[in-house]
Amino acid sequence: MAAQEGGKEGKKSGGGVTLKTPKGTRDWAGEDMLLRDEVFKSITDIFKRHGGSPLDTPVFELKEILAGKYGEDQRLVYDLGDQGGEICSLRYDLTVPFARWLAMNNVQQIKRYHLAKVYRRDQPAIARGRYREFHQCDFDIAGVYDPMIPDAEILRIIVEVFEALDLGITIKLNHRKILDGMFAVAGVPAEKTRTISSAVDKLDKMAWPEVKKEMVEEKGLAEEVADRIGEYVLNKGTVSQMVEYIRGNEQLIANETVKAGVDDMALLGTYLDAMEVSDKITFDLSLARGLDYYTGLIYEVINLPPKEDGTAGKKKLKKDDPANQVGSIAAGGRYDNLVGMYGKKTIPCVGISFGVDRIFTILKARRERENAAKTRTTDVYVMAFGGREFNGLLPERMSVASKLWKAGIRAEYSPKVKPKLPQQFKAAEDRDVPLGIILGQDELAAGQVRLKQLGQGGQGKASGDEDNRGKLVSLDDLAEEVKKLLL
Amino acid sequence: MAAQEGGKEGKKSGGGVTLKTPKGTRDWAGEDMLLRDEVFKSITDIFKRHGGSPLDTPVFELKEILAGKYGEDQRLVYDLGDQGGEICSLRYDLTVPFARWLAMNNVQQIKRYHLAKVYRRDQPAIARGRYREFHQCDFDIAGVYDPMIPDAEILRIIVEVFEALDLGITIKLNHRKILDGMFAVAGVPAEKTRTISSAVDKLDKMAWPEVKKEMVEEKGLAEEVADRIGEYVLNKGTVSQMVEYIRGNEQLIANETVKAGVDDMALLGTYLDAMEVSDKITFDLSLARGLDYYTGLIYEVINLPPKEDGTAGKKKLKKDDPANQVGSIAAGGRYDNLVGMYGKKTIPCVGISFGVDRIFTILKARRERENAAKTRTTDVYVMAFGGREFNGLLPERMSVASKLWKAGIRAEYSPKVKPKLPQQFKAAEDRDVPLGIILGQDELAAGQVRLKQLGQGGQGKASGDEDNRGKLVSLDDLAEEVKKLLL
Repeated sequence: MAAQEGGKEGKKSGGGVTLKTPKGTRDWAGEDMLLRDEVFKSITDIFKRHGGSPLDTPVFELKEILAGKYGEDQRLVYDLGDQGGEICSLRYDLTVPFARWLAMNNVQQIKRYHLAKVYRRDQPAIARGRYREFHQCDFDIAGVYDPMIPDAEILRIIVEVFEALDLGITIKLNHRKILDGMFAVAGVPAEKTRTISSAVDKLDKMAWPEVKKEMVEEKGLAEEVADRIGEYVLNKGTVSQMVEYIRGNEQLIANETVKAGVDDMALLGTYLDAMEVSDKITFDLSLARGLDYYTGLIYEVINLPPKEDGTAGKKKLKKDDPANQVGSIAAGGRYDNLVGMYGKKTIPCVGISFGVDRIFTILKARRERENAAKTRTTDVYVMAFGGREFNGLLPERMSVASKLWKAGIRAEYSPKVKPKLPQQFKAAEDRDVPLGIILGQDELAAGQVRLKQLGQGGQGKASGDEDNRGKLVSLDDLAEEVKKLLL
Repeated sequence: MAAQEGGKEGKKSGGGVTLKTPKGTRDWAGEDMLLRDEVFKSITDIFKRHGGSPLDTPVFELKEILAGKYGEDQRLVYDLGDQGGEICSLRYDLTVPFARWLAMNNVQQIKRYHLAKVYRRDQPAIARGRYREFHQCDFDIAGVYDPMIPDAEILRIIVEVFEALDLGITIKLNHRKILDGMFAVAGVPAEKTRTISSAVDKLDKMAWPEVKKEMVEEKGLAEEVADRIGEYVLNKGTVSQMVEYIRGNEQLIANETVKAGVDDMALLGTYLDAMEVSDKITFDLSLARGLDYYTGLIYEVINLPPKEDGTAGKKKLKKDDPANQVGSIAAGGRYDNLVGMYGKKTIPCVGISFGVDRIFTILKARRERENAAKTRTTDVYVMAFGGREFNGLLPERMSVASKLWKAGIRAEYSPKVKPKLPQQFKAAEDRDVPLGIILGQDELAAGQVRLKQLGQGGQGKASGDEDNRGKLVSLDDLAEEVKKLLL
């Protein structure tokens, strides 16, 4: 069953109701759902490996909890209707509910993970995996620690997740202190720091002359200030290369904020080496990230298309390949002041959010390219056959299936009282079921049934060939025999 | 971390915001979350065993999809605010979204399951596990089949789920056709069938004289009609006993509707015997269920408190035990006309909904009675020790942990540059971590570390005792050695 996207598939039903999901939302069914759950499991396994503790919060929060957290995007928050009582909004991310929970429960230190849907009244772009209802998978480390230790572990987690999913990646890094200090050195007035930061963030989609134009013409920055920014932000390289570059630039390193940021990055570099993830990292001075609440390290993960030899590389995919269009597939950073907006104490935090819908879009396209086999959902089909007096042996099929279920085996049978044998084989075949159990009156009288491997031709049609009709197995040994064949 | 319930724990934060979850909602964290996920996994495993295919739908639907489905309870539906665009409501159950999905995708036959939260603006009763945001786990079989075959499988699924959760149950059964025919025979006017049905449904909480009073005084039923109803609905027993009772009652069995229902029940009885679940079943003529859309078999699952010997039985629990207070823990029935309200074709369906929050409440109370050990979340704690020149060996601890993570082992280390050894042991102990890896400069120089089982006293304090300091293991063999000890 393919996913249905709201807005396109709408049709009027008999009762005059439009049959669709709301705009920017979708149903998940069949193979899509199984693939999505695989992604969740891969990610969760790694979160647990790192001592993560699960959290789940309500889908809506008091509106005042969300107020003033998302800058310009606040208007994208979904509100619940006022039906008397509290005024609530659907959650916009998992970070603000986490901060609310930390403050409310006075939790001082935790590694928590949270997989859930979030809601944004944005313009949907379905082909690129952008929905109004979509999933986030977040891992955050809250608490006071020695510098950069949790930050390094988050980056290690990112690498482990995409290795588990077999997706090639680059992690772009930057540091808000370096960025803000750099803007100050270039001559950006303090009140324009965030808006200029937003312009710089567009460098992954726009060329420098366009970004410069936005800064000068739209945001009123002096041209020479913009040019100095351009000199800085177009640099990128390994962590040690970029630390060397900044420390070698006398004007930059004279700025206290830049210096603090570079010291963080140098320390982080040694930890990333120890964790063997440095080869996935690019220190990119143009990375800025939209959200206001970041205070230190920031990062964004880009999917690299696979090379000819199957490893990740720079080979161009076709224009319409989702891997080319989805943008970042995970992102995050350090936010040391957000919890302090709720509680009396501030609790420094650093975290990552995986964009499961975009990751799903890439993996699904890959599966379709590879023509991957369908996921099997049934192991055994319980059938019956007989001659003219055949009564369908339904209670007997139910009884055999119950034995299998009891043993944890996935079993089905025809929901007809008297099904024909070819119908039963066809049903098993349609579901790619590997094993058939065939009940006959005479065999049952002897406490036996026939166990047959399916999909091997012949389909057990009446013939003298013993093998073709399956192996005789006693009912008492049946579950055991089936389990052996399923290994 | 204990669950926090909205409304009670609210406190003003520094920023003047009330720190609480909305009324009738809660956070899920720590042990609660792990227990909830265990329940989900038990249920999902069984759904899969029966050939179930997963479905997920958006948390909100177009308001018109939900309209006119829930009778008097329609007012409990949560609406989204009108922010321009479509008018939507939060889902009230998982059945209506399933019917919408079937009609929209023209699916003729499916076994589908769906685990998700649903929303009702009801009066919360937290101690009894009744929330405004709560979970449902639904399994439904849609399609045209020979009679009672899917119905029997649903009942088998119920038994398997509660066996997996080790909860004693009774399943109460009834049939809408028997109920409606019985009311007609008793002389209930057709237009009063549903409202009298609702009154009868209260017999599990109220005595007959009160229910009769409601029928006569509030609902205007003639007293002799009410008395005739009383003669019928107070009967219950095994399926075969009740089939015999109804077939032996000339007035009842003369009614075509009653006869059709009894024939269904007789057939079902043979299937339940074949599936070995008849001992869990009570055919109870007072069961009526609230929802309008049921058309055939209906059922409700009641938790039985454990007997002295640990098996389920009738022993009374303390009044405040949740098992006494939660009411039904699963319920469902056949609804053959709901899908037809959306699509051109009607698709008969039968399904069950498990009330996970109530089940959770019972299981949690049991765990607390049994003082169950906490779930362990970390397998290995990586530590360092050294003398006066000790530099903390942080990159080395990170490198060792990375090796373990790569091997799928759950590992943590102190997030301090120079942690003291007793601090590290205490952190491991607080988390119930079973294994410690201890790094020392000399051992590392030889490519080795010490591997030590924790929680066995001694805590590796400096002593000449080799065993007490742990076993020397080569870094290359470390992951392998750890896995052996974790088995």
